[in-house]
Amino acid sequence: MTTPSLGLYGLGTMGSALALNILDNGYALHVSNRSDDKVPEFEAEAGPLAERLTGHASLVEMAKAMTAPRAVILMVPAGKPVDDCIADLEPVLEKGDVIVDAGNADFNDTMRRTKQVEAKGLAFLGMGVSGGEDGARHGPSIMVGGTNDVWEGLREVIEAIAAKFEGDPCAARLGPDGAGHFVKTVHNGIEYADMELIAETYGLMRYGLNRPVSEVGKTFKRWNEGRLQSYLVEITGEVLAVEDAGGAPFVDTILDRAGQKGTGRWTVIEAVRMGQSASVIEAAVGARAWSAEKPVREGGADILGWVREDVDLSEEDLEAALLAGRIVAYAQGFRILEASSNEFGWDLDFSRIAEIWRAGCIIRSRLLDDISQAFRSEPPQGQLVFAPAFAEMLKETVPALRRVVSAATLAAHPVPGLTAALGFLDTFAQARGTTELIQAQRDFFGRHGFDLIGGDTGQHGPWWD
Amino acid sequence: MTTPSLGLYGLGTMGSALALNILDNGYALHVSNRSDDKVPEFEAEAGPLAERLTGHASLVEMAKAMTAPRAVILMVPAGKPVDDCIADLEPVLEKGDVIVDAGNADFNDTMRRTKQVEAKGLAFLGMGVSGGEDGARHGPSIMVGGTNDVWEGLREVIEAIAAKFEGDPCAARLGPDGAGHFVKTVHNGIEYADMELIAETYGLMRYGLNRPVSEVGKTFKRWNEGRLQSYLVEITGEVLAVEDAGGAPFVDTILDRAGQKGTGRWTVIEAVRMGQSASVIEAAVGARAWSAEKPVREGGADILGWVREDVDLSEEDLEAALLAGRIVAYAQGFRILEASSNEFGWDLDFSRIAEIWRAGCIIRSRLLDDISQAFRSEPPQGQLVFAPAFAEMLKETVPALRRVVSAATLAAHPVPGLTAALGFLDTFAQARGTTELIQAQRDFFGRHGFDLIGGDTGQHGPWWD
Repeated sequence: MTTPSLGLYGLGTMGSALALNILDNGYALHVSNRSDDKVPEFEAEAGPLAERLTGHASLVEMAKAMTAPRAVILMVPAGKPVDDCIADLEPVLEKGDVIVDAGNADFNDTMRRTKQVEAKGLAFLGMGVSGGEDGARHGPSIMVGGTNDVWEGLREVIEAIAAKFEGDPCAARLGPDGAGHFVKTVHNGIEYADMELIAETYGLMRYGLNRPVSEVGKTFKRWNEGRLQSYLVEITGEVLAVEDAGGAPFVDTILDRAGQKGTGRWTVIEAVRMGQSASVIEAAVGARAWSAEKPVREGGADILGWVREDVDLSEEDLEAALLAGRIVAYAQGFRILEASSNEFGWDLDFSRIAEIWRAGCIIRSRLLDDISQAFRSEPPQGQLVFAPAFAEMLKETVPALRRVVSAATLAAHPVPGLTAALGFLDTFAQARGTTELIQAQRDFFGRHGFDLIGGDTGQHGPWWD
Repeated sequence: MTTPSLGLYGLGTMGSALALNILDNGYALHVSNRSDDKVPEFEAEAGPLAERLTGHASLVEMAKAMTAPRAVILMVPAGKPVDDCIADLEPVLEKGDVIVDAGNADFNDTMRRTKQVEAKGLAFLGMGVSGGEDGARHGPSIMVGGTNDVWEGLREVIEAIAAKFEGDPCAARLGPDGAGHFVKTVHNGIEYADMELIAETYGLMRYGLNRPVSEVGKTFKRWNEGRLQSYLVEITGEVLAVEDAGGAPFVDTILDRAGQKGTGRWTVIEAVRMGQSASVIEAAVGARAWSAEKPVREGGADILGWVREDVDLSEEDLEAALLAGRIVAYAQGFRILEASSNEFGWDLDFSRIAEIWRAGCIIRSRLLDDISQAFRSEPPQGQLVFAPAFAEMLKETVPALRRVVSAATLAAHPVPGLTAALGFLDTFAQARGTTELIQAQRDFFGRHGFDLIGGDTGQHGPWWD
């Protein structure tokens, strides 16, 4: 297949980096941006790569200047900006052209846009790109949703710019229309969870073991040599090593009020909508939301009046707890992917998804190769946590997770992510729970019915008279 | 105002009970049902009350037979059935008539339907009714959304059938269109949370303290005499006292697979969508969702292989922990109400909402009078948990909650609701959290920016070079 002519619109952090990556791989590229002063800036930034670059004053001018078949990559904020771009492009593009949304779209929007664009005789690709600026520049993980034909037409370029794990490109078509963006959304949900678990572990070392920040940073660096090896643990070590001009930890100058853009929330909403619970991801989204209420927390410190106390925990316990928490975060992410795959008929390949997360993306970690293998061997009940390798890891690490949660609980350190992970495991480790009581209550007050252990279904009261 | 002629469609558990309640209060009532054999059945059930009753073969026949102004109360399953009824009614009704949706509608639907019905010159009332069958029959709590005019036209009837708390009817117009159904949704979310907290406490006594079910039931009955006094604790005592024909606890015959119909999930989804976290409600929704995966849990018991162990806890600690958890469940519910009130401009009166929850509804409890007073006095930062009475209760009970969560954690009892409650409190008891690390990570990999403690906003890397 001929590679289409390539255009990229949106030269922000991620767009510029992806554009340089495309140029670097030997492709000619058209670019444009909403405010056109960004274009000469980018041409300067591209240096010698600019010889393959053509800048344009607007999206429409760029599309007109490209030769068919065209692939116009949009790297703009999710939501209305994408719809505006599509509206601008539709009159200009022709059959055989593709619009590629490389932003963090809500997969529902991607499904709608795919239909809309296809109705005009054009093609649409929903492409999730993970790896931050550095990944976009030197090789991100790329999660694609669209028809196989459209994917094959762009596959060479996408695989060229993607990260490589032992030579294997971290890019794949995962399913039709919204599949790529949904997998990217869940990727980000797992990212939220992993960051929260790391922050909780940091908090325990910092405020429970009273370690200096620099020493905590060194611990993360050491952990990154072991089975916690991962991009997020690695950069935590680097972040905590940074000092301000006065030699104080840089992280201490930052306001503890975390931002979020939507993918974490979308993951939780989709999970709950599908009758699931992504409790560790929810805890992470909640922790960020609550952190934004700084004045309320300041009021609470004053009014409730209890403080974080010392904990007696070993580094080994903290390391094991973080590992167990991380496993559950991945496991819950894959459970949501399974539910969505069933609901939308996407037939997602979990093993392949884990493979393309092994390099380039933010949640890349040593565990992902094991996860890929676990799904390849079809774990019991489809559950990652029941795959032999993971069940073994959990049996070994959960006792430490218990000690950490228990100590944090007694000493008033909030660890919502770690506790959610443990709650998930303890729930699924029990054949008999306690919701029979809930069923009895529901039937008692609302005649909602229940099933009996013997197999009789739809039983109803009054059984209490 | 003249009371309109009243019709009720949908003679299921809740519909029949509400119809009897209306008749009981001296009103004439037209009734009909999808399958019309229910109508003579209901007439028989009504006994002497049937003299004020007129049965009809269909919704349309009923509406035609009623004299204007009409109020047609729908008590049908949420979703399409409501839209179908509206479509049937619109050609028959005339200006001045009201359609009342008394089911558990999604408030988004109620907002849409209000517009749609008003465009046809008719009126719509979204009416949340809580109290189960017994409440509907003898006096439920009624949460109304709609215009003031429409409310005033039906107020007399609604207040007559509502529960009374020391003479005050547990019914109010809370705001326009979707406000009533949204408050009912959050009511149910709190109900989910409270039931989960009770089930967790039950589990600890049953499987951690190895108490016989009947004894656990007696404990709940005793607790119901104290500050845990509430409908749900009361019926838990009654439920646990029931034995099967062989003298074994009836609850043990029930499959531990809990159902749910939507309101719990909607509460969580709306909370997350609005940038909130209703973590205790999420834990409850999640516990029900996971309970449905019985074969997975059976697999997990086998593969993970750890079991619930004994705990060393006093009944006093369990009682205090349940109280603290319940307070947080209410508090999170009111936080969601506040967010929705701000988003939709509903100007909800939290104090009045607590008042109409004091009798008739499923979450009625001794606490609600205190909650009403706390909101009347405008608690610090708008937070229920900071109101003096509640801050005091929490300072006293949270140490017990810590002991309970810690013991459960070490002994593998899943207590996701109790841990979520504690996580919420510990998060809001700290002026300085740990999300500064998350902000640093986000800027490190994605140039997302952060604010400094000193007040400078939108700072960006690279600060690490």
